[in-house]
Amino acid sequence: MSHKYHEATISSKPIFDGKVIKVKVDTVELPNGKHATRELVLHPGAVGILAISNENKIVLVNQFRKPLEKMNLEIPAGKLELNEDPRECAIRELKEETGYSALNMTPFTKFYTSPGFANEIIYLFQAEDLEIGEANPDEDEFVDLVTLTLEESLQLIDAGEIVDGKTIIAIYYWQIQSLKDK
Amino acid sequence: MSHKYHEATISSKPIFDGKVIKVKVDTVELPNGKHATRELVLHPGAVGILAISNENKIVLVNQFRKPLEKMNLEIPAGKLELNEDPRECAIRELKEETGYSALNMTPFTKFYTSPGFANEIIYLFQAEDLEIGEANPDEDEFVDLVTLTLEESLQLIDAGEIVDGKTIIAIYYWQIQSLKDK
Repeated sequence: MSHKYHEATISSKPIFDGKVIKVKVDTVELPNGKHATRELVLHPGAVGILAISNENKIVLVNQFRKPLEKMNLEIPAGKLELNEDPRECAIRELKEETGYSALNMTPFTKFYTSPGFANEIIYLFQAEDLEIGEANPDEDEFVDLVTLTLEESLQLIDAGEIVDGKTIIAIYYWQIQSLKDK
Repeated sequence: MSHKYHEATISSKPIFDGKVIKVKVDTVELPNGKHATRELVLHPGAVGILAISNENKIVLVNQFRKPLEKMNLEIPAGKLELNEDPRECAIRELKEETGYSALNMTPFTKFYTSPGFANEIIYLFQAEDLEIGEANPDEDEFVDLVTLTLEESLQLIDAGEIVDGKTIIAIYYWQIQSLKDK
């Protein structure tokens, strides 16, 4: 069942082998026997962290994103290193980007960002019982910390100022928890 | 403020010009004056549709996704054609993929899927007052329709069987509406 409509690879052409992504074009055989091409981006995967402070505010980072040519407000996140455990990555990235250590780091969902052309997967974690420490960003990483209440976060989504997929999933998840607690 | 930490483009190298994506590598100047490279995927953008049937079930499509090498359960979606209005695209794609026409098609959020390396944006719409008709998929499109209750959808997210970003955002949004209505 999970391979119904399978597209067998007829040939595969490497296009680009970068530091972050690889690109290839596969020629595939469709279920009707015809051939088609698929443009594919391979990515190592990443984690994102829903971190709620002891003041009940979400911890976000604001950083310049070259593909968008603007600053973008997002949950703390980072790419998986080779063979890195996602939970270890989440603990590391939260500490590096924000200075926060979390006594509890619990997975709550995972998702593909763009299954039409990319295999990037993001593992989302909820960080709780935060302890503030010193941030330690990569030398070439420039980020500002922003903390927001749930109400403020939802307003920024409505206003089109929070426009990042993983961040919207995290904020909606937080809202669902909040509505259930009422 | 929105350009703090701006990364000026020093040079830009085209890598690939495909049917769906373009790839380039930019050399940028960081805020500290150093140079770095950015691997960038350019994408035309897309729409996704949260369609709730008159039986209060979400309409999903199950299709083979080559980047994942498996079938993937997602809300109806499709790429924007050149200069296409997102709402028109949502009406068109819902009809083509599922056969449903919606009397109301309301935008509820938009988001970048992978702002670290891609500029793909997805506009999400809520389709209401559905009328069933005949699906009209592209000749080379193979999809199965699946309808699920909210409870079933949430169970599939928890089970790791719904693992698509836009689909999780849509289902969480539906759950929030449902919790608020209680």
